[in-house]
Order: sequence, then C-alpha cells, then structure tokens
Amino acid sequence: MQREDQRAANVLRPYRFVPDVAPQALASVLVSSGRTQVICAVSHDDSQPQWKKIQGIPGGWVTAEYSMLPYCTFPRKKRNANGKVDGRSVEIQRLIGRSLRSVVDMEALGERTLWVDCDVLCADGGTRTASITGSAAALAIAMQRLMQQGVLETNPMRQLVAAVSVGKLQGEPLLDLCYVEDRDAEVDMNVVMTERGEYVEVQGSGEEAVFTAAEMNEMLGLASVGIRELIAAQRRVIEKVCRERA
Amino acid sequence: MQREDQRAANVLRPYRFVPDVAPQALASVLVSSGRTQVICAVSHDDSQPQWKKIQGIPGGWVTAEYSMLPYCTFPRKKRNANGKVDGRSVEIQRLIGRSLRSVVDMEALGERTLWVDCDVLCADGGTRTASITGSAAALAIAMQRLMQQGVLETNPMRQLVAAVSVGKLQGEPLLDLCYVEDRDAEVDMNVVMTERGEYVEVQGSGEEAVFTAAEMNEMLGLASVGIRELIAAQRRVIEKVCRERA
Amino acid sequence: MQREDQRAANVLRPYRFVPDVAPQALASVLVSSGRTQVICAVSHDDSQPQWKKIQGIPGGWVTAEYSMLPYCTFPRKKRNANGKVDGRSVEIQRLIGRSLRSVVDMEALGERTLWVDCDVLCADGGTRTASITGSAAALAIAMQRLMQQGVLETNPMRQLVAAVSVGKLQGEPLLDLCYVEDRDAEVDMNVVMTERGEYVEVQGSGEEAVFTAAEMNEMLGLASVGIRELIAAQRRVIEKVCRERA
Amino acid sequence: MQREDQRAANVLRPYRFVPDVAPQALASVLVSSGRTQVICAVSHDDSQPQWKKIQGIPGGWVTAEYSMLPYCTFPRKKRNANGKVDGRSVEIQRLIGRSLRSVVDMEALGERTLWVDCDVLCADGGTRTASITGSAAALAIAMQRLMQQGVLETNPMRQLVAAVSVGKLQGEPLLDLCYVEDRDAEVDMNVVMTERGEYVEVQGSGEEAVFTAAEMNEMLGLASVGIRELIAAQRRVIEKVCRERA
Amino acid sequence: MQREDQRAANVLRPYRFVPDVAPQALASVLVSSGRTQVICAVSHDDSQPQWKKIQGIPGGWVTAEYSMLPYCTFPRKKRNANGKVDGRSVEIQRLIGRSLRSVVDMEALGERTLWVDCDVLCADGGTRTASITGSAAALAIAMQRLMQQGVLETNPMRQLVAAVSVGKLQGEPLLDLCYVEDRDAEVDMNVVMTERGEYVEVQGSGEEAVFTAAEMNEMLGLASVGIRELIAAQRRVIEKVCRERA
Amino acid sequence: MQREDQRAANVLRPYRFVPDVAPQALASVLVSSGRTQVICAVSHDDSQPQWKKIQGIPGGWVTAEYSMLPYCTFPRKKRNANGKVDGRSVEIQRLIGRSLRSVVDMEALGERTLWVDCDVLCADGGTRTASITGSAAALAIAMQRLMQQGVLETNPMRQLVAAVSVGKLQGEPLLDLCYVEDRDAEVDMNVVMTERGEYVEVQGSGEEAVFTAAEMNEMLGLASVGIRELIAAQRRVIEKVCRERA
Repeated sequence: MQREDQRAANVLRPYRFVPDVAPQALASVLVSSGRTQVICAVSHDDSQPQWKKIQGIPGGWVTAEYSMLPYCTFPRKKRNANGKVDGRSVEIQRLIGRSLRSVVDMEALGERTLWVDCDVLCADGGTRTASITGSAAALAIAMQRLMQQGVLETNPMRQLVAAVSVGKLQGEPLLDLCYVEDRDAEVDMNVVMTERGEYVEVQGSGEEAVFTAAEMNEMLGLASVGIRELIAAQRRVIEKVCRERA
Repeated sequence: MQREDQRAANVLRPYRFVPDVAPQALASVLVSSGRTQVICAVSHDDSQPQWKKIQGIPGGWVTAEYSMLPYCTFPRKKRNANGKVDGRSVEIQRLIGRSLRSVVDMEALGERTLWVDCDVLCADGGTRTASITGSAAALAIAMQRLMQQGVLETNPMRQLVAAVSVGKLQGEPLLDLCYVEDRDAEVDMNVVMTERGEYVEVQGSGEEAVFTAAEMNEMLGLASVGIRELIAAQRRVIEKVCRERA
Repeated sequence: MQREDQRAANVLRPYRFVPDVAPQALASVLVSSGRTQVICAVSHDDSQPQWKKIQGIPGGWVTAEYSMLPYCTFPRKKRNANGKVDGRSVEIQRLIGRSLRSVVDMEALGERTLWVDCDVLCADGGTRTASITGSAAALAIAMQRLMQQGVLETNPMRQLVAAVSVGKLQGEPLLDLCYVEDRDAEVDMNVVMTERGEYVEVQGSGEEAVFTAAEMNEMLGLASVGIRELIAAQRRVIEKVCRERA
Repeated sequence: MQREDQRAANVLRPYRFVPDVAPQALASVLVSSGRTQVICAVSHDDSQPQWKKIQGIPGGWVTAEYSMLPYCTFPRKKRNANGKVDGRSVEIQRLIGRSLRSVVDMEALGERTLWVDCDVLCADGGTRTASITGSAAALAIAMQRLMQQGVLETNPMRQLVAAVSVGKLQGEPLLDLCYVEDRDAEVDMNVVMTERGEYVEVQGSGEEAVFTAAEMNEMLGLASVGIRELIAAQRRVIEKVCRERA
Repeated sequence: MQREDQRAANVLRPYRFVPDVAPQALASVLVSSGRTQVICAVSHDDSQPQWKKIQGIPGGWVTAEYSMLPYCTFPRKKRNANGKVDGRSVEIQRLIGRSLRSVVDMEALGERTLWVDCDVLCADGGTRTASITGSAAALAIAMQRLMQQGVLETNPMRQLVAAVSVGKLQGEPLLDLCYVEDRDAEVDMNVVMTERGEYVEVQGSGEEAVFTAAEMNEMLGLASVGIRELIAAQRRVIEKVCRERA
Repeated sequence: MQREDQRAANVLRPYRFVPDVAPQALASVLVSSGRTQVICAVSHDDSQPQWKKIQGIPGGWVTAEYSMLPYCTFPRKKRNANGKVDGRSVEIQRLIGRSLRSVVDMEALGERTLWVDCDVLCADGGTRTASITGSAAALAIAMQRLMQQGVLETNPMRQLVAAVSVGKLQGEPLLDLCYVEDRDAEVDMNVVMTERGEYVEVQGSGEEAVFTAAEMNEMLGLASVGIRELIAAQRRVIEKVCRERA
C-alpha cells in the first residue's frame, strides 16, 4: 500500500512549532503536522479553580479547551451555536487536560490555574494529538516564564509529553494518519507518552472493526518511535525560545 | 492489599441480569455489578437516522444515550439543567454506541434505528462498562424479537460484546473496580472485548500517573478473564428470555 | 360501556409498592398502577433551599422533579435536549411538590431539603397521580429513617396523601383511567386527598368539553373511594419496611 | 374580616375592557381588574400548527402565550433570560389555551391558527383569570372580524367563557382575590366557566392547607356569581366594538 | 416624491406621550410616533450592578432592555424562545442605554440601578428612536420622583436627550421614516442629540448603498430640527406630570 | 498630548496583511494593526441562505461572524458558553457584514453564500475596523479565485472598502486608537469608507460625553486619510497574491 504522500508506514508527517503567535498569552505555539495546524495558547490566572476551593484541595490546576475554527475544514463547519453539545470536542479537551496534568506537579504549581486553549486552524487528521504535542511545548515555555518572573520557584512540569495517532489500514499498521487514512482506517489509536517512555493514555477503537492483541502491540511500537522524535523537537523549540528571552 | 469486599484481585463483583424491567421497550435489562445498577433499554424506530438519509448511506444505525438518575449517588446529583454539557456523559454514550455497533451488521439491520438508553439507578464504579454489558444483552434480545416478529430475516448481531474495568491500585493490578478503588487508582482502564476475544476498545488513562507496557499487559490479561465470564452470563439470560417467549 | 380490562367503573387498577429499588436514595418506592410504573426516590440535603435562606424564612422544604424515561412510551420519547421547556412536566412536578408539602410541617423538618424524584419507567395513564401516591409512601419511609438516625425528633409528616384520576368517558364517570381512556375522555380530573379525607388539590379540565356541577360531584365521589384504598396500601408498605429495618 | 378595599366577600374588583390597544393585532383588549392589567392580543396565521399537519388532523387551533412585563411588579422581575423554564408561566398559558379552546369549534375555524398573547402590564393578583376573561373578549372580536372579512362563514366561537379566582382566607370564602389576599389565602381556587354555566376548569389548591367538600362548594358558588357578571361585561364591549366597525 | 401620509420631507409624524401606563413602575410613558407605539418604563433597585461592585467603581447605573411584543407586527413575531440571540434587539438596547447614560451623572445617582424597559406595542418604523425619546421622558419623571421621595438630593439628569431617524429615499433626504420608507431607503441614519444640541450618537448606514459627506450633512440638519421639537414636547409632559403630583 | 507610541495624531499604527494563513479557506488574511491581529477567512457554499430561498429573492449573500479567541486579551476571556448572548460581538458582526455587502453585487454573485469569519488573535483596540479591512482584502482574493476557477464570470466586488477608528481624547481628535486610548476617549467613532471615498457606515458615540458638529467633521477628515492609505495597502496584497497564483 502506497500512502498518499509517499511516506513509509513508520514516518511522521513534516512537523513544525512556531512560538508566540498569540502575544497576549503567557506562551503560545502554532504546531503543524502535515496540513494540520493548531494554535496552542497558555493563559494563567492567580487562583485555584472554584471546585478545588470548595473541596479545600491545595495546589493548582491545568485545564484545556479544544475548538475547531469554522474555516479549518472544507466545507465550513458552523460554530457551536446555542451551547449545543459537540460530543467530540468535549472528549478531546478532556483528553488534552488529562495528558498535560499527568506531567505537572499540582502542588508545585501553587494556587493558580493554567488555561490551555487549542484552536484548530487547519484540520487534516490528528488534531487531538497535535493539540497535545503543541500544548505541552507551550506549557513548558509558560512554566519557564513563570520561573523567570519569579512567580514559581521550581518547575512544576516534571517531563515532556507528546501524542501521535496510529492505525490499521487495509490490514497494515501506519504511523501518524492524515484525514483520508483516518477516515478509512479499520482501527484508530491515539497514544500519549512521556519523555521517559511511559504511557499516559492509550485509546484504541474500531468503529466497525476489531483488533487483536498482536495488532495492538505493533501499533504501540510505531507510536513509540514517533513520539520520541516529537519530544526531541519540542525540546529544541523550548530551548530556543527560552534562550532568546534570557 | 485487601479489597473492601474481600475479593481476590482477579474476581468480578457479583453480577445479575434482570430482563424486561421496562415493558414498553422492545427489550430491556437491569444489569447489576456489585452495588452498581443500570437500566438498559432498547427502543426501535422504522427509519434511518437523518444524517444517513442525507448522505445516502444504506442500512440502519445503533445509537446510545447514557444518563445518571439523580438519586444514583449520594449526595444527589442534579439533572442536566439548561442543556448544559456534561462532558463525561457525552464521552460514555459515544463509547457505548461504538462498542455495540462493532458487532452489528448495519446492512442486515435494514433502514431502522435502534436506541439504547442506559440510565444508572445506582452508581458504585463501573457504570460505563456495566452499561455496555447490559446493553449488549438487551440488544441481543431485541434482535431475537425483531426476527420473531418477522421484521428481520437474519440476525444482524454477529456476536456478543462486553466490557470491564481494570486498574492499578497501590501498584497492584485489579479487576472490576468499585467506586472507592476507582477513585484511588493510579491507572484506570476500560476494556471492551467481543465473544471471539478481539478488542473493540482499549482506553487506559492515568490522571496523575503513568503506566508501563508491562503493566498494561497485566491489566489486559485480567480484563480478558472477566469479560469471558460476563459473556457466558449474557448468553444464559438471552437464551432464557427467548425460550420463555417462544 | 365495557372497560378495556373489564374493570367496573369504580375499581382501581391493580397496584403495587416495591420499596428500596434505588439503594443510594434515603428511601425509594417503585409504584405500579396497572401497566404504569414510576420510580419515586427521596434524597436529602442538610440545608435550606437558596430562596428560603435569602428571604430568611425558617424551616425546611420538599421539592419534586418529574421526568419520563425515554423508553416509558412507545414510540420512544426524546430526552429533554437543550433545556427545552416541557410544559407538561413542569406542571406535574409543581403539583407533586404542592401535594407533598400540604402534609409536611416545614418547621418540624428543620433546615433541610428533601428532593423527591419521580421517573416514569412505563407510562399507561395516571403517571402524575401514581407519582404522588408513590412519593408520599417513599417520603413517609424517609421521615421514619431520619428519625431512626436521630436527625429528626418528631415526624414532620402529619398524615399520608394520595391521588387518583377520575374522568367522564362517553358520559359515564370512571375511576383510575388508563392511557386509552384518558385520551378519549371528555373530562379529566385529578384529585389529591389526605388520609383524613380533605382535598389538597382538585384539578378538573375539559379540553374540548365542559362539565356540570352534578358530574363533578359524581367524579369526586369515585375519587374518594379510590384514594382511601390507596392510603391503606401505603400504610402497609411503610409499616413493613420500617419493621424490617428496626 | 375587612377586605383591604372594603369590598364585601362576594363582590368583584372594578373591571374594565379597553379594546384595540395593539393596532397591528387582529383584535386586542386591555383588561383591568382592580390594579391588575393585562394586554390580550389575538394574531392569526393562515395555516395549521405543524403538529396538526403531521398528524393529519383537520381544522384549526387556538394557542396562548402568557408573559409578565418586567415592570408589572415591584421590585422589577427579570425577563426570562436564556430560555430558562418559568414553570408558573408555562402552567398559566396552558390553562388559557385550554379554556379558550373549550368554546371554539376547531373544524369551523378551518386551517388557521389563532395566537393569543397575554402580557401583564400590572400585577396585583388574578392575572391568570384576567388573562382568560380578556382573551375571550378579544377572541370573540377577532372572530367577528374574520367573518366581516369573509374569511370565516360561521362563527366558530360557540359561547363566551370567563374566569375568576376564589379563595379561603382566615376561614372565610372570598371572591376575586387581590395579591395580598392571594398570598395569605389558605386555599386558592381558579374557576373557568362558560356563558351557559358549565365548568371548563376547576383548579383548587392548598399549599400548606387543605379544604373540605363543603368549603369547595361555597367557593364555587361565589365564582359562579362573579363569572356571570364578567360575561355580561364581555358581551357589552364586544357588541360596542363590532357595532362601531360595522 | 409624495410621502405616504402626505407629510413634507422635514415634518415629524404626529407624536404623543401618555404618562404612567404601568402603575407598578417608578415612572412610565407610552410614546407614539405615527403608528409606532412603545411602552417605556423605569424601575429602580437600591444597589449597584454586580460589575460595578466587583470593580469598585462608585456611583449608579442606567441600563436598558428593548423587546418587541409579538403582536407589534403583522404577521406576528415569535417571542425569543430558548434564549436565542436576536442581534438587532441587542444592538438597540445597547444604543438606548448609552444614549440615556450620556446625560446622567452616575456619581449623583448614587449606588442605585435604574432599569429602563422598552416594549414595542406597535411597530411602524423608528422604534429605536421612539424608545430613546420616550425613555428619556420617563427617566426624567423618575428622577423627579426620587427627589420628591427624598432618595436623591440633586437631579442626576443634566439635560434631556431625544432621537429621530433620517434617511435618503430615491435620492431625497427625509425626516422620521415610517416602516415602508425605512425598508426602501438607500441610507438610514439614527441621530441622538441632547437638549443643548450636541450629538450623543450618529449611526448612518447604507446596506446596499453608500453616501457622500454632503448627503450626510443634509440629513443631520433635518434630524436637528426634529429633535428640537421632540425635546420641547418631552418638557411639556414632564412638567405636567410633576405638577400634578406635587 | 503625547501618544503612547509617539505617533502623530494623524498617523496609522504599523499594519500588515499576511495572506493564506488558513489553507482550507477559499481565501484568508491575517491582518495586523499595531498589536491587534485578526484572522479573516472566507468560506463558500454553493447555495443561497435559507431566508433568501424562502422569500424567493435571487442572488447570493455575504455574511460575517466575529469572535474573540480566549487568549486575545489578558486576562483570558471565557468562550461564549451556553449560547449566552454577547451583545458586542453581535453588533460587530452585523457591521462587518453590512460593510462588505455594500460593495458586492449580490446578483452577480449568483446563488452562493460567502462566509467571512473574523477571529481576533490579539486585541489592542480597533478589532472591528481591522476585521473589516482584513475581510475586504480576503474577500477580494476570494472573488479572484472564484473567477479563476470559472465559478464566476464577472467580479461581483465593485470596489474595496476599509475602516478605521477615530476619537476625541483630552479634547484632541486622534486617528486609529489603541486600546488604552479607546478606553479613555470621550468620543469613539468608527468610519467605513469605500475606495471611491463614499461612506458606508459612520458610527460615532460618546458614552459619558457628547460631541459637536465641528468635532465630528475633524474626526471624519482624519478617518478619510487613514482609510485611503489602508486601501492602497489592500490593493498591493491582493495583486501580489493573485499574481503569484496565476
């Protein structure tokens, strides 16, 4: 099977991290992966979320919101009018939040809330994994800045985290699916993994199909290689941004 | 580590399937798993969903809705007022729907929609997996009845499907977590598997923790044993109900 | 005129009260009346409602919510999506609340709120009156339990209350209408009455018809007989539950 | 007991019907009863309501909406923001609609919808009964105009209908309660009656109290006298308006 | 060009101010301009708006709400169901609020909120300008009453304000457009001006057309004449009302 | 008076137009004006809007949506949850739509809808005028592309249009206000003008202040100079983009 863009099964799409596209945010990254582009921006607020206060739980919080800009797809996708539930977005923003929180020490963060917004500028598959990968880079930059401003003493972010999709298409395991591959895949799996190689999330689903344990292992292997490469790239952009500002 | 109810790590909670609790539904099952109880009811409607009609896709559809009755927890949980998004419910009902559809042949179902409603009567952990397991039993009974009524010629449900939670608590892998175990677990994994032993969904997450490949494999092993037992129990209730009516 | 189920005009449908179907609630009763079935569950909360606090009114409150489970009718009834107003449900839950409050001493209840949820599992006419009758039984059990727990010193529920529908069909007064009778009735009347035989609510309406004073009196007479029988049955289930627990 | 405005127990408040306050409506009446004032306006639309079309039921429909203008009370009452349910308004507009429909022949109305809007300009008790009484007058004028315009051949409104509140205050039955009387009443009853003296609706409730059959009969007697007087006044304004236009 | 009602291009429609149509309000005026009629009512509340409290800004606030009664147009206009956004109303109520606030000294008003409600009873063009003109009269009466009641020491309303529409129709500038003229106009301009002849708002728009500086000046000239006449009429009604009450 | 960024009173902030930032859109421009940045994207759809179809009006439509990304301000601004009305956004998107439509020939556009989305990436005053100026450039590029694709035969966009804010601050007229200037200004005016120098919209308001005719003329003069410069810049970017693609 030939992939649309001639990539080998185990190769990521071209990716890029453009820092500070949203100047009012504490930190922001425009992440791209093939044609997919997501604006990831971190804002902060010097208080705990309401539910932590009420329950008397110490420490801070990291929360994420995911949204598709109407022109990120063709044809145009309507904005969420009238507070109508968009189940997919809710699911994705919960996943992004959990992934980021798994590498942050909430006590070290202190009584503050970090908001991570992911707005999809162009959608061609893998928007949730790009959101996680871009957000983690933006969050790392945000933490550095809070330390430089003297707001934080130690860095609450223990390590980096990134995500990638893998799938099974025409029986073959593939890394980093574009939209057309994702649409036709028998199995779709999103893997979130830390810098140290531990899983944060593994979500594998077959809509009209099923998968065996062996197939799952093959897909997890591909994901692992891809994520390692993405984390190296995150490191480079974080260091570059922080060096420039210092 | 001693479990609250003295169960061994690889033992399911006591379960039960009570059929036909909702007489106006095509089929219904009150499933219980420990203290957790869910009403699973299947309704039908002799037309395709709107989106299938518009896109001209042949065949039927199976869709699920999940809701917690306000008195299923203590303290009481407010009903979803004002159409406010409850992210967790949206995520769960999407999972139930995907799980059921993975074992149904939509073409064989013909131009009809089956609605599967899961209303939690008592919540003590594992409501999403109990919903899948109870719904699959109710759906199988519904299919039999549509065949008996001459509405369907062949059974569109190819095999059964069931689900169970597994987790890692204090470093130890456990099968079928109750609420307290789930709340304290470092890792929480929901596994949906078919009668033939294939995965439909694997969703593993660590909120404040991570997990290794070896830990994941241990948990998947436990899940597999539990699901096999649940599917045998589903078979028994389905046969009993269908024999009685015949 | 022959009734569908051969009942005489002044006979109730077979009824039943199954206690404690919802184990997390303070008290619950599954009430059935013919094919109609309603889950009535009482939850409690140790504070006054917000509006009583603001207005500085002492004492507690009893409030009711009524909802139809989607599979309680055929064809299936959609859940209340998007906070859309369902006028009929609003009207019914206000009636249930008023009926229960008429027999409760709010001062004796103290600064607490009792939530009474009525979820219709199967609808075949008379769901609002069954809800009142079932809720009153559940509320009486709840009060006993709060006394056993030492939360209450005296029982704030002064007496029982129950409800039944009566109507005029083809010119004839009938007790306890099923769905088909209710749909075809010229006049529909719901009567709520206490153990001592006083009215709490009398709601008689003719949608496309009217009724005379004489007809009203006949219908009220039938209602009175039916309610006396229902209250005796409530007494039995309450005593049985409270004896078992003691 | 002395009433605030020195009225005898069986005397109505001063009432008035001002026609055609809303010139774009087919017919309108500003009804006042003591300080209470309601704008009742009838609009028409040359098609059946959607649900009649779908169900294939012939004939027209009369539907009502009830709303309180924010400055009809002191302090000001917020407008219904965000589609939030206001249970009381829903209940009232359902009652107004049923009352009007009981005297209209839907087949004779033909395939059209009449909208009756009741907007409360000043609230001092009895806004629902004033709405019914004012709306019935406006509807009768509207029917006359549709006949004058040649839209209708025969008058679908078979007779007039009016409503009044009665209650029990400090043990005494009173006709036509103002706000303060209504707030303090032990029992509150709304009676809707036709020109021929038949009941359309009888709604008696005790919030914290109950009432006997004898008390109910006394209250119904007072209501009957008041409604007869109101219907005579409706007749006068309808005739005056229709004579002027002819 | 001949205007529908034979008016000259620089002549206002017949106008009228009827005071105190809403007796529970602090002050109210039914303003009419040709067929257009708007109820303008002022309510008060002895506290600052929430946002002023939070931001610690001293003084009071004046806020406006604009709404069309459903029968103010033919065919009937649906009420704003489900909190759906009606962009035009939002825009208009923001304009009314700004216009009134431009002539009120918020410090002198003290820590109170004045609510100005504008409900259109009959719409025939110019409802937003009639709302401003009627509201300013009602607000001036309200201020006098707060002074008479000893609530205010000095009058916070520095001067009157009124508004009128002007437009360009078939190339000709016209004062005070009725609905049909407004619908067909190439340019529509709303002008809000104070008693001292200063502009508060100038809003000129061409939907499918544009306008030159010279045309704008001509239209502003017409507006100025009309507004002067309206302010004189406001003065008369305010004085009459306040004299009567004194 | 010295401006924050040392600009003279009649000088625009530095501006820039970056084309095609949203690759799935038909055309897009990231416009910046000082620190203010707005993504303007045009999508198309080959059918008329619903209301044009129903009313049988021929030709196409151009409609705009305006939204602030949550991180465009500090502190972060919540997304519009629950469909709550944000009056300011509604007002702005109506203005953008009217401005663009004033220069487009709807008949020449044919039966299609162009959606113009404006999402503010960074807000520092003048977001509505930047949105109009950026959208007009994106719309012109979109029209060229529809002609190159053979969808359109003639260009329905008759000329360019742009907008700028002017204001009065400490008595002095200023061109192109940044956020701090806008917040402190006594008068704020937004001017939309075509390439041929005609006005499309003039919106001048004083929140707590008023302005004279002379002051208005001064401000309009400044606006005219600024808009001419912006239209020249629009021309350059449109030509560059269209040449590159040809």
